[in-house]
Amino acid sequence: MAALIECIPNVSEGRREDVVAAIATAAVSAAPGVVLLDRTSDADHNRSVLTFLGEGEALVSAMTALVGAALDAIDLRKHAGAHPRLGAVDVIPFVPVRGATAADCVALAKTLGRTLADRYQLPVYLYEDAASRPDRENLANIRKGEFEGLAKKMEDPAWKPDFGPSTPHPSGGASVVGARAPLVAYNINLATADLAVADRIAKAIRHLSGGYRFVKAMGVKLEARGQVQVSINMTNFEKTPLHRVFETVKSEAERQGVAVVGSEIVGLVPQAALLAAAGHYLRLEADPGPQVLENKLLERLS
Amino acid sequence: MAALIECIPNVSEGRREDVVAAIATAAVSAAPGVVLLDRTSDADHNRSVLTFLGEGEALVSAMTALVGAALDAIDLRKHAGAHPRLGAVDVIPFVPVRGATAADCVALAKTLGRTLADRYQLPVYLYEDAASRPDRENLANIRKGEFEGLAKKMEDPAWKPDFGPSTPHPSGGASVVGARAPLVAYNINLATADLAVADRIAKAIRHLSGGYRFVKAMGVKLEARGQVQVSINMTNFEKTPLHRVFETVKSEAERQGVAVVGSEIVGLVPQAALLAAAGHYLRLEADPGPQVLENKLLERLS
Repeated sequence: MAALIECIPNVSEGRREDVVAAIATAAVSAAPGVVLLDRTSDADHNRSVLTFLGEGEALVSAMTALVGAALDAIDLRKHAGAHPRLGAVDVIPFVPVRGATAADCVALAKTLGRTLADRYQLPVYLYEDAASRPDRENLANIRKGEFEGLAKKMEDPAWKPDFGPSTPHPSGGASVVGARAPLVAYNINLATADLAVADRIAKAIRHLSGGYRFVKAMGVKLEARGQVQVSINMTNFEKTPLHRVFETVKSEAERQGVAVVGSEIVGLVPQAALLAAAGHYLRLEADPGPQVLENKLLERLS
Repeated sequence: MAALIECIPNVSEGRREDVVAAIATAAVSAAPGVVLLDRTSDADHNRSVLTFLGEGEALVSAMTALVGAALDAIDLRKHAGAHPRLGAVDVIPFVPVRGATAADCVALAKTLGRTLADRYQLPVYLYEDAASRPDRENLANIRKGEFEGLAKKMEDPAWKPDFGPSTPHPSGGASVVGARAPLVAYNINLATADLAVADRIAKAIRHLSGGYRFVKAMGVKLEARGQVQVSINMTNFEKTPLHRVFETVKSEAERQGVAVVGSEIVGLVPQAALLAAAGHYLRLEADPGPQVLENKLLERLS
């Protein structure tokens, strides 16, 4: 089966539902086989996050059509919202899901960036795994100054885009295209109402304070449950797996006399993140992914 | 989409890779639309498990061709292996996957049994959901005495086959055809060469001797590894889940001073069986199935 990749364009329109729907439709119509998994709009942010799944080349076609439709429909000169943004289509990350590597996604990001620049005279910056230089890895650096400060920022040779003209698209600004590992939002709930316990555990597991390389974490109070939660972003579940973090949280909680009540995944999760946990605890000698019946069906259907 | 059924012939050949490949090819060549999803051979067992997916009538044609090829290539009079067997093609279960019922699979089993008996003068027993009488529901009852004891066993009118002659096929024995719920073949490997340890643990977990309701198990020697294995058939992984059985095996092994080296799934496994294990150990508060990315794709494609 062809490699499966996720693509999550963030579009600067979160109030006109019909516009967002039309932009999504443009993407799936352009590339049979690409499916829209999720579409979430935020009126305050005036921004929508669309989640597509498909094969690499098809996703590039879908995103090219999506950006065309968005440039037609969105004028950033008239756009306001709580969320920072640089372009009509602000960010487009490619994420490997199954049978694809980070390198595959970097290659797709570059192909898409070049295509968007050529087709729409749109400046494109590459970020995260696809970044051309270290100071462009972090999206916040690229987006600093936002659409309104972009023309001025681009006068600095340090901010020459990776593809396209050195001046903003008049109504569409610039787009930031990249590749990153799948992110899993994972929370672990504790049998205490004492936020300090969750905070101490979050500190123990997060990269910033000496924990795991691909963990961001903080303590959160769950008022309705009278419990606290270690709220975690797993930014690379292959290198820092869920079960390892779960076991560390359990051990640290135990040390403080607190039990782990349960855990929860927020939003979507690649199957591999959960199969890895099953494989760890059952001591499976091989990755069970290729043996999963549904995966065989998926191969036949796609 | 047409009803999809799985058919999993167990063939008594696990060492001659070319023979197994030819048998599989005979099946798919006979029935366009039938696909081979998986093929797993075990040299110690001297047995291969082949998994086909397709529509009912096409599967009957494919299995008829497969049995013909196996009878040509396999002579049980010269066969030895750790796994009990009655025939060259030992067992052929039909399993409903999507849009098919247990009754559909029973009808297919009967059609196939009649066809094999007529075409190859092969005795056929029906088992599990397709069994003609209660004492034939259990495969172990039918297989008791194995190929070597079959001629003698068939002299008893109680063991007249459901189809075909009342004497064994000279080189191919008899085949057992049936219909059943999805089964997970799951083996747990132990850090000892002492078969008695695996046998004691198998006895502790299997239904027959006081263990879990939906577990069949036996000890098997893994000569090549210098280890033993608890070889398990999980006949209903929803009611008797893998992780519960694994934990019991681990505990019983520990009691005997033996470590669990690893475990392995043979053939295909429904995703739910592994997600249940992940959910158990990570203490997930909800079934993660609906959040699995790949499942969203499957929903949209089928």
